[in-house]
Amino acid sequence: MSIANLFAGIPDAPPVELVTSLLEAPNVRIERIVSHGHASPPGFWYDQPRSEWVLVLSGSAAVLFEGEAAPRVLRRGDHLRIGAHERHRVEWTDPHGPTIWLAVHYH
Amino acid sequence: MSIANLFAGIPDAPPVELVTSLLEAPNVRIERIVSHGHASPPGFWYDQPRSEWVLVLSGSAAVLFEGEAAPRVLRRGDHLRIGAHERHRVEWTDPHGPTIWLAVHYH
Repeated sequence: MSIANLFAGIPDAPPVELVTSLLEAPNVRIERIVSHGHASPPGFWYDQPRSEWVLVLSGSAAVLFEGEAAPRVLRRGDHLRIGAHERHRVEWTDPHGPTIWLAVHYH
Repeated sequence: MSIANLFAGIPDAPPVELVTSLLEAPNVRIERIVSHGHASPPGFWYDQPRSEWVLVLSGSAAVLFEGEAAPRVLRRGDHLRIGAHERHRVEWTDPHGPTIWLAVHYH
C-alpha cells in the first residue's frame, strides 16, 4: 500500500529504453517504459503471447502494425490495445524528450 | 486497434464521478475515473473482490485505508495498489478541478 510516482526518476537521455515494472500479478503486468528517440531495430517485430494496452503519457510515438501502410501516431493521452500475436513495431519515438508509456500486459 | 485519448471528454464539473471503461477482458478491467471534489459517502467503505492499481494523472485525492489514522494523499503520477478486500474510501478529491484516475482492476 505504498505510494510511488510514475514521473519520478525519468532519465534525461537513456542510451536504451528504460523499462520499470510497477505491478506484477499472475494475469497482469504493468510497466513504465521511457523511450527517447528509440525505435525497434530494422526488421524487428514484436510478437507477444499476451495482449497489451498502452498509454502514452508524454512525448509521442509511432506504432506500425504488420500489413498496414502507415503507423499509428500516439501522443499524450492516446491509448491503444494490441492483441496477442498482433505483430507490431515502434517506428519512432520523440527524439527531443522522453516518451513515457504505461503498458499493461494481460491474459 | 483504434486510438482513443484519455484526456478527451473531461467534463467541467460532473455532478457525479464519471467512470469510463477503457478495456474489458476476463481478468482485467481498465477504467478512467473523473472526480471533481467527490468523496465516498460518510461511513462508506469500498470492499472489492478484485485487486486494484490506481494512478492519479491530474488533480489530487486522499485514500483512507480502514484502521489507518490518516489518508494517503495522491498527486499527479502517484500510484497505489489496493489489495482485494482491503477496505478503503476516498476522503476527498481536489475541489478546484478534475482529478483523473486510471484504475486497473485485476484478478
